[in-house]
Amino acid sequence: MMQQSENKHEHFMQKAFALAQQAFEEGEVPVGAVVVYNNRIIGKGYNQCERLKDATAHAEMIAITAASEFLNSKYLKDCILYVTLEPCMMCGGAIYWSQLNHIIYGASDPQKGCLSANKSLFGKKTNWISGILKEPCSELINQFFSLQREIK
Amino acid sequence: MMQQSENKHEHFMQKAFALAQQAFEEGEVPVGAVVVYNNRIIGKGYNQCERLKDATAHAEMIAITAASEFLNSKYLKDCILYVTLEPCMMCGGAIYWSQLNHIIYGASDPQKGCLSANKSLFGKKTNWISGILKEPCSELINQFFSLQREIK
Repeated sequence: MMQQSENKHEHFMQKAFALAQQAFEEGEVPVGAVVVYNNRIIGKGYNQCERLKDATAHAEMIAITAASEFLNSKYLKDCILYVTLEPCMMCGGAIYWSQLNHIIYGASDPQKGCLSANKSLFGKKTNWISGILKEPCSELINQFFSLQREIK
Repeated sequence: MMQQSENKHEHFMQKAFALAQQAFEEGEVPVGAVVVYNNRIIGKGYNQCERLKDATAHAEMIAITAASEFLNSKYLKDCILYVTLEPCMMCGGAIYWSQLNHIIYGASDPQKGCLSANKSLFGKKTNWISGILKEPCSELINQFFSLQREIK
């Protein structure tokens, strides 16, 4: 069972990672996210802050809004959020309000991640799993910022 | 000068309050927000979580996205955000990412407000003023929740 669950997590994280790659190609900080319900993707998003000129357009926000639209519900209790990077404070707040109880992320973000500062905000019901496809997720982000520094 | 500034703050908070009243009439938690640039409202919003079935549709998020659209910029450094209630963690994150440096709110939110938990997140450059039209802002919210309890 454990093996199956891990395969499932890797499967959906691959989908989120493909979205992060899309963000990378478009010159966005490469983060991707999918919301899964009954083993089906019902919302997806990648960082579009540059394209939309909107600091709120993080992958998770877009995926959460899409999933809410799909379910016609502001609550996403029975959904799983897969995201390539640990969510920031803003996205952590969105997770809180949408009552998402299962969050699985790839790379950690010790500086801007919401868990280091605010884990107490999330109740015991909220399950966090980290490190799924950690290496490719963080390498993509590191590669992005290395390129940015070269351009500058 | 102080008097002028207070009048200005009350003027724009009145606009935010009118949006909160609109939310109230539509059965939404009554919070309203405006983003001001050069003494002009360039973005406004009120809570639309119920109508949009989207937990991310807080007044501030909508106002910030609208202001970014107006300025064609994800940064809102020279803008002022007026909001009738102390922003939550999600909206606090959006304020952080959009580099909004001036935030003026009406009622405090000791339970869900981002300042109690996270003031350290915001640098010294970020100026917070609280208590403008505090009474009507908080009364409207109290009235809303009293009504909600009666309905239930």
